[in-house]
Amino acid sequence: MTPIRIIVCGFGNVGRAFVRLIEDKQDDLKNRYGIAPKIHAVVDIGGAAIADTHGLPLDQLRELMDSGQSIERMASFGRPGMSGAAILQTLSADVLVEATPTNLVDGEPARTHINAALKKGMDVITANKGPVVLFYKDLQERIQSSGGRLFMSAATAAALPTLDVGKLCTAGAHIRAVEGILNGTTNYILTRMGQEGCDYTTALQAAQDLGIAETDPTLDVEGFDTRNKIILIANQLFDQCLGITDVETVGITGVRREDIEKAQTDGRVIKLIGSVRWENNRLCVKVAPEALEADHPLAGVHLSEKGISFDTDSMGRITVTGGHSSPTGAAAALLKDLLHAYCFYRE
Amino acid sequence: MTPIRIIVCGFGNVGRAFVRLIEDKQDDLKNRYGIAPKIHAVVDIGGAAIADTHGLPLDQLRELMDSGQSIERMASFGRPGMSGAAILQTLSADVLVEATPTNLVDGEPARTHINAALKKGMDVITANKGPVVLFYKDLQERIQSSGGRLFMSAATAAALPTLDVGKLCTAGAHIRAVEGILNGTTNYILTRMGQEGCDYTTALQAAQDLGIAETDPTLDVEGFDTRNKIILIANQLFDQCLGITDVETVGITGVRREDIEKAQTDGRVIKLIGSVRWENNRLCVKVAPEALEADHPLAGVHLSEKGISFDTDSMGRITVTGGHSSPTGAAAALLKDLLHAYCFYRE
Repeated sequence: MTPIRIIVCGFGNVGRAFVRLIEDKQDDLKNRYGIAPKIHAVVDIGGAAIADTHGLPLDQLRELMDSGQSIERMASFGRPGMSGAAILQTLSADVLVEATPTNLVDGEPARTHINAALKKGMDVITANKGPVVLFYKDLQERIQSSGGRLFMSAATAAALPTLDVGKLCTAGAHIRAVEGILNGTTNYILTRMGQEGCDYTTALQAAQDLGIAETDPTLDVEGFDTRNKIILIANQLFDQCLGITDVETVGITGVRREDIEKAQTDGRVIKLIGSVRWENNRLCVKVAPEALEADHPLAGVHLSEKGISFDTDSMGRITVTGGHSSPTGAAAALLKDLLHAYCFYRE
Repeated sequence: MTPIRIIVCGFGNVGRAFVRLIEDKQDDLKNRYGIAPKIHAVVDIGGAAIADTHGLPLDQLRELMDSGQSIERMASFGRPGMSGAAILQTLSADVLVEATPTNLVDGEPARTHINAALKKGMDVITANKGPVVLFYKDLQERIQSSGGRLFMSAATAAALPTLDVGKLCTAGAHIRAVEGILNGTTNYILTRMGQEGCDYTTALQAAQDLGIAETDPTLDVEGFDTRNKIILIANQLFDQCLGITDVETVGITGVRREDIEKAQTDGRVIKLIGSVRWENNRLCVKVAPEALEADHPLAGVHLSEKGISFDTDSMGRITVTGGHSSPTGAAAALLKDLLHAYCFYRE
């Protein structure tokens, strides 16, 4: 039985869902995969909880979550005021699970956490897009010199397996193009506009009323979230080091009711597509609304659902759709990366 | 650079496509994956070609294929009359690629090839369903005692990544159900019946005229091909040892025009589904035509296309569609398994 010591930074919805999954599935992880993950420390904004040698007791962690208590209040283990940076300076573990909120300005505090973990040769599994989008090249250099590994499934559309399909399922094939519907909110708005013939503002309001769009929907509707995901996909699958300014990004705020109707008349459907395509031997990465033909495999991906399609030489076109867009879905992607790191991949 | 010595048994469409891929992609395999596969021997019905220490010259192999010559006539290397069994007794290599025609009566000659390779501790990558469908349990026991590994992506819907998605992309999730459209011919026939309102016989004839259905279509239309694939999927993903008689199998020969029309009236579509489902804590594996709701993710998989959908606990539903149904698609799946074995997976 391989014990795996994990430090979890960020104990919001995703961090909590991850710890719940580890607790729910501990028997299954032992029986099916031969691993025993131990939560060595959990850090949140108000402080931390640090385990003795056996890992934090998962039943007590669950009680704490169920009662809505802060992690630094955990009996025996709580350390009010202790930061992630301090934890990563003093403790060693096998893996950092980075689940603090994404910060697209300077990537903090995740950047500090990830750099500190890699410096120690720890593996890093991140749901946080900030550092990987902003400092991809720098991180690659740190990985090279540290021996740690970096996994980011949860940052690239969570439970929808984008990187796995592009790396593992299509191994050996040349990927000519990737097209993805990578953001559920914008796909929901476009679907409603198409179904109800309403304009963008009305559909956005409906999405906000349902909690699908945020009060400030900028990150989604301007295409920035899609851009961040397609950057990671391009960097991981095509060995690039693209940053935010390298990707021409058009969101859906300019899509008019007439555009949707015109597309429908032509038997097409407008979707916000993040794409990577070889054009004249140059890799073009962009985000824009595109009018897909009715038989395009992403044309039937509706409402909040996501999907990604790979056009390859030897395997033809392979498309994957679905996957929970939820904290549990993101946590499941973190767990999947953990299993890939410790049960499937070579060191 | 890891050299990998390969013995290819079966030099029909799939075996040839595999050797072509290895030749086409040798630079790419070196640069991206750090491997140098060598074709150590190729065997077909009339004999073999055996390499010296450097592997068979890939350019000469290509010339031989382009000119339609038999492998045993290959200059310097040809061995007329030499069988796969003899090759595997006398030669050692890292991997057997088994691509002889599937035999569902006794699994031969593939069974002999695979058993001999495993006995030597070689890895086996098979496109041939025969031995793995007929003798799964026996093979598992041989694997346990030999140290060799067995990969069968190419036998389970070729370039459509069925096993990868169920093992790797959903790692850590509990799969509650698998539903697959795993046979292109029957999906083509059902699609035509739906689109044109014709009966089964007419649609079958159309499929035969186009070369999509064989003159004797039994294997496809009786659901046997779907059954063979779902057996392998159930065995690999749910740790079962099912055989042919364990799976209730109904094909499409009994689907009437009226059934299709009735389904259409109800907003449904009839598809031949191979399924694995937990029902009352029992795993139910079967093949039958099912009337899918219009929003089922496989409802839009038409004509010769295939697809598979996984219903999971933590990741929700994940569906993958597409993948070449061709010798090249099957060869690409063989190459993918080779890369998984030597570049991704732990030993």
